[in-house]
Amino acid sequence: MKVPEEVISALREEDDFLIASHIHPEADALGSQIALASALEAMGKSTALYNRDGVPELYGFLPGGEKVLTSIPQDTSGLTLILLDCNTPERAALEGHQFKRSVVIDHHETESYFGDVRWIVPSSAATGLLVFELLKEMGATITPAMAINLYTAIAVDTGAFRYMNTTPEVLRAAADLAEAGATPGAIAEDLYESWSSPRFKLLCMTLGTLEIYDRTAIVAITEEMFKKTGTSAADTEEFSNFPRMIKDIAVAVFMRELPEGGWKVSLRSKGEHNVARVAMRFEGGGHKNAAGCTVQGDLPTAKRKLTEAIREIL
Amino acid sequence: MKVPEEVISALREEDDFLIASHIHPEADALGSQIALASALEAMGKSTALYNRDGVPELYGFLPGGEKVLTSIPQDTSGLTLILLDCNTPERAALEGHQFKRSVVIDHHETESYFGDVRWIVPSSAATGLLVFELLKEMGATITPAMAINLYTAIAVDTGAFRYMNTTPEVLRAAADLAEAGATPGAIAEDLYESWSSPRFKLLCMTLGTLEIYDRTAIVAITEEMFKKTGTSAADTEEFSNFPRMIKDIAVAVFMRELPEGGWKVSLRSKGEHNVARVAMRFEGGGHKNAAGCTVQGDLPTAKRKLTEAIREIL
Repeated sequence: MKVPEEVISALREEDDFLIASHIHPEADALGSQIALASALEAMGKSTALYNRDGVPELYGFLPGGEKVLTSIPQDTSGLTLILLDCNTPERAALEGHQFKRSVVIDHHETESYFGDVRWIVPSSAATGLLVFELLKEMGATITPAMAINLYTAIAVDTGAFRYMNTTPEVLRAAADLAEAGATPGAIAEDLYESWSSPRFKLLCMTLGTLEIYDRTAIVAITEEMFKKTGTSAADTEEFSNFPRMIKDIAVAVFMRELPEGGWKVSLRSKGEHNVARVAMRFEGGGHKNAAGCTVQGDLPTAKRKLTEAIREIL
Repeated sequence: MKVPEEVISALREEDDFLIASHIHPEADALGSQIALASALEAMGKSTALYNRDGVPELYGFLPGGEKVLTSIPQDTSGLTLILLDCNTPERAALEGHQFKRSVVIDHHETESYFGDVRWIVPSSAATGLLVFELLKEMGATITPAMAINLYTAIAVDTGAFRYMNTTPEVLRAAADLAEAGATPGAIAEDLYESWSSPRFKLLCMTLGTLEIYDRTAIVAITEEMFKKTGTSAADTEEFSNFPRMIKDIAVAVFMRELPEGGWKVSLRSKGEHNVARVAMRFEGGGHKNAAGCTVQGDLPTAKRKLTEAIREIL
């Protein structure tokens, strides 16, 4: 991958950076931020790290995570913004701030034209992969802490090397980062084997509600189940992926009862089945293989509405 | 990794091979067999593939799997045996057969001295990794079919790059094999997203039985549950790994009711907790982090016996 010369020169020329990433961050946002900041600091630059929502507990193991702040320096006009894993100030909760210069590094498809320097590669599996290429190109020494951050970034965005975006390049970067001090087994344990007992109990209960209609799998969580296990909506992250394990399932539906009534619905699909079309029927939205919406009614009614809408895309 | 010269010369000198692997094979056994056979065939050699139990349905996607036969040629005395992913004839159900010569390639620790040529590397994550090194060393062209077999072999033995044995070398081999035509996303789908609906329902039910005592998680399957879902013991492969997802769990116990009464017990542990010691209490055996035994009594009695024995290793 060729790193644009203007990205490198912008980072070389400037000295004071604010490195930001999108709200509700996952490891690709955070790991990229932390690793890039470490490299710039090692070059004698000054960096501040900003994420409106901070580091979620799940990613507490990322070394250097404590440098990610949830507040923005008062005067940003002398700072160069580096926006990672997103490409508009709004996605990073940075609206209205002025910067000396701005650099965008991202792998999301985009229609925005924000940024003095833009490096957006939708074909790249992770922003962490772009940051890794950039650091190599700039001759930065990859420390073990940086390697852990970048390895985790790439692992999370490729489903730990299980998604279709797992290219030879992804695996080679992972190998290089493991060589530089990332610990694949320990990182996987932190990511996938560190569930709280209540969260795991909630998963067990949720999977117990599985119903299969034709090629659609549905699971549902009620408010009652949250109460019983002492969990909350935040604990349901990843739940919608489990029914994908079933071979002949085309669409997986995850429903969560809302305190105000109705159901928050996550839709996941395999292959060509476009669940964004289902979500739009209920004024929701999303992508072809991952979308969401809210559906009203009691559980049987909401399920019926959903399965009817899903039937049309199967 | 240095491939011993005597392994290469044995394969170069001989022309007729029987390539065998252990009974109840997984992908490391089968993928290694198939890939090595293809390479030798391409060198103009003749090969027969033997596995007593054949290719399980889960691994039906391995290209060339149909070449693995469940019977042995009548006269083996003119054949060179290549024994893969195990190191005694017994493990491959080959007792009593005579061979012209024998070559063992394996990564299991061993006390056996079988084999005219032995290449056993316990530090290697997979036998597939050894076969890959061997093929490179011999100058073989890795076809896409061979790459899929070797990639799958390595993926399965490293938990798809999540176990502690995921070294830079493992990831670099995976990258090379993806470059040669292995398809990481499609292989992961074949391995991890191809469960039958009844099997997934059984998993949901099983996880619904979760109980946590101190740092021990226990799930149990009754004969009743098999009947209800139309499944059998073969469908429970991998089930014992799920409770490992819980952070503070040191030991995961998976119990399966036996038709003749009593419980078949799988024990999995993290880190230093030695479940082989627990299994030995009930005349079972295994390794530090994975062991098994049979426990008599009704479910509450069997659970009590187990938790008491487990308490001593926590």
